[in-house]
Amino acid sequence: MSETKDLQSIWFSEQDAKVSIIDQRHLPHLLVVEEIESVAAMCTAIREMHLRGAPLIGVAAAYGMYLACREAGKFGSRGRLEEAAKRLLATRPTAVNLAWAVQRQLDGLAGIEDPLQWPATALAAAREIEAEDIERCRRIGEHGIALIEEIYNQTRSRVNVLTHCNAGWLACVRHGTATAPIYAAHHRGIPVHVWVDETRPRNQGARLTAWELGQARVPHTVIVDNAGGHLLQHGKVDLVMVGSDRTTRTGDVANKIGTYLKALAANDNGIPFYVALPSSTIDWNLRDGVAEIPIEERNAEEVSFVRGLPRDGREIAEVRILPEESPAANYAFDVTPARLITALITERGICPATEQGIAALFS
Amino acid sequence: MSETKDLQSIWFSEQDAKVSIIDQRHLPHLLVVEEIESVAAMCTAIREMHLRGAPLIGVAAAYGMYLACREAGKFGSRGRLEEAAKRLLATRPTAVNLAWAVQRQLDGLAGIEDPLQWPATALAAAREIEAEDIERCRRIGEHGIALIEEIYNQTRSRVNVLTHCNAGWLACVRHGTATAPIYAAHHRGIPVHVWVDETRPRNQGARLTAWELGQARVPHTVIVDNAGGHLLQHGKVDLVMVGSDRTTRTGDVANKIGTYLKALAANDNGIPFYVALPSSTIDWNLRDGVAEIPIEERNAEEVSFVRGLPRDGREIAEVRILPEESPAANYAFDVTPARLITALITERGICPATEQGIAALFS
Repeated sequence: MSETKDLQSIWFSEQDAKVSIIDQRHLPHLLVVEEIESVAAMCTAIREMHLRGAPLIGVAAAYGMYLACREAGKFGSRGRLEEAAKRLLATRPTAVNLAWAVQRQLDGLAGIEDPLQWPATALAAAREIEAEDIERCRRIGEHGIALIEEIYNQTRSRVNVLTHCNAGWLACVRHGTATAPIYAAHHRGIPVHVWVDETRPRNQGARLTAWELGQARVPHTVIVDNAGGHLLQHGKVDLVMVGSDRTTRTGDVANKIGTYLKALAANDNGIPFYVALPSSTIDWNLRDGVAEIPIEERNAEEVSFVRGLPRDGREIAEVRILPEESPAANYAFDVTPARLITALITERGICPATEQGIAALFS
Repeated sequence: MSETKDLQSIWFSEQDAKVSIIDQRHLPHLLVVEEIESVAAMCTAIREMHLRGAPLIGVAAAYGMYLACREAGKFGSRGRLEEAAKRLLATRPTAVNLAWAVQRQLDGLAGIEDPLQWPATALAAAREIEAEDIERCRRIGEHGIALIEEIYNQTRSRVNVLTHCNAGWLACVRHGTATAPIYAAHHRGIPVHVWVDETRPRNQGARLTAWELGQARVPHTVIVDNAGGHLLQHGKVDLVMVGSDRTTRTGDVANKIGTYLKALAANDNGIPFYVALPSSTIDWNLRDGVAEIPIEERNAEEVSFVRGLPRDGREIAEVRILPEESPAANYAFDVTPARLITALITERGICPATEQGIAALFS
């Protein structure tokens, strides 16, 4: 597979007015590009996780609304537009960026009478949301690199970062959130090594983060989700860096299931635990993450079956790992209480995971 | 698959003087019985994990020494016997039962001059070790049932137990350790439900514990290893019950990788965390589990590949879940410090996970 540094996870081609995404279900085995031609196709892509990651879902929803405008615009039907918005909103209930991007599009279109102007308006907004996401991630990297550099200046040896799931550019548009400081440090010549949690059930760490890091030639080692505690106990991790799907105004973080366990282990061993997040994940209405954030339950087959490439095959296959009669449950996220988080890394800088800390940056 | 309540994980047939085991690599998809005819075959079975679980490894090693006696006895070679002992000891460095069972056999044979008497002596000792294990597990169940019953008497609703890996009868001979109180409660009519951690990388929970519980008709749900924290946060777990591969005299517990993370989460949510263990796992020489217990690193392919049954296939297959270029690390165990353990359940009763608590039971 060739270098992919010029790729984005989603892009719009001016030439033929097409929205394209990487269909991430085939990674790391195949790099498949999918053209998304309708809002229905975008709903499927989000719901079936051709793409995933809170920031990317937001950008994808914005482009979804552009596609909805192309469809609804012809008929001048605002009802159809609102129906498309509802369908997009229903695809992933936990991701606050999705609701945010759809609402921003609806607000922008509210004052525009002429339906024929809707597509151009929505496209401009989608491109703006995309550009903002890239810039936010770049800034997260710029702020976060200081945390890695500080450890390197003290130890003068390779800095070991533990990460969970994929909060890389495949979850955003470019740079990523949790990976942005890592890429920035690597490009500045600071030696880093990343412990990559495989992140069951969907293995986004093993499949996506490992692939991204490999493409960028960042040294890394994949581990099972069970291993982080042992590594932290034995001084093999200098800092933990994860992303966020939804952040309360008090600093609680909903992220991929298992994040909470790693935060507990970092805390128990006095190792800093950082969450890198664009402010678009902050839900200003929430104060108590554990009590208030609804946790998506997904299809149990994601637990019973594991996807991968057979030893002697070229087609991705699924193998059942449970007895046929055994039921499984599949909670997609958990909530890490703010008390376990050393600091939040945002596009505006680094702050404590407290209401005061967040408010000071985003007043 | 028919009921397996009369099966053991290992057994000796008087009729044809054969040692048989369940080759657990094929579960839950196939029930395969393997006859073990030489010490070399037993070494392979232990090393390649046809069988696993600390107590079972001890019993298997005892039968391995019996097979070694059959081979060495013919030639009257004590050197050959000692060489077989060394080979058995090298198969799994973490399991203290292995060393204990091999040493017990060597001690028992030390005073016997006539090599032709070695096989009968070693067989008698192996059968005794087997019977002792069954009795220890039965007693663990008898003591542990009180902890489940107490919760049931308070709540009068189904008791939810979280367990990690397989500390069931497939890890012992019968009953299991962590499962013994669960089976005992179920048979007494106390409604129990077990959350089964799949336990990557080898999925002993998903493959073995789920199969065992299904065979015994105990209600259960398989989850990924990442999910336990979320369940504990939301009151969906009443107690955690796990086994031990090696226990220090101070109550630290080395068990399957990931156990420590569950103990942290139980602790953080005020839920009791119990370790069920036969005293044969206690290593009286150790005081500091994290510092002193060597942690086995196993083949990285256990992380990169997942075994299971293809959707449309009948043969177990392996699928790669990592990019081909990405390295993986595979630590098999971690250590849970005694401070996170509510109590130890042993064949002699329940005690605090402290040096005093253990000493009071085993003085």
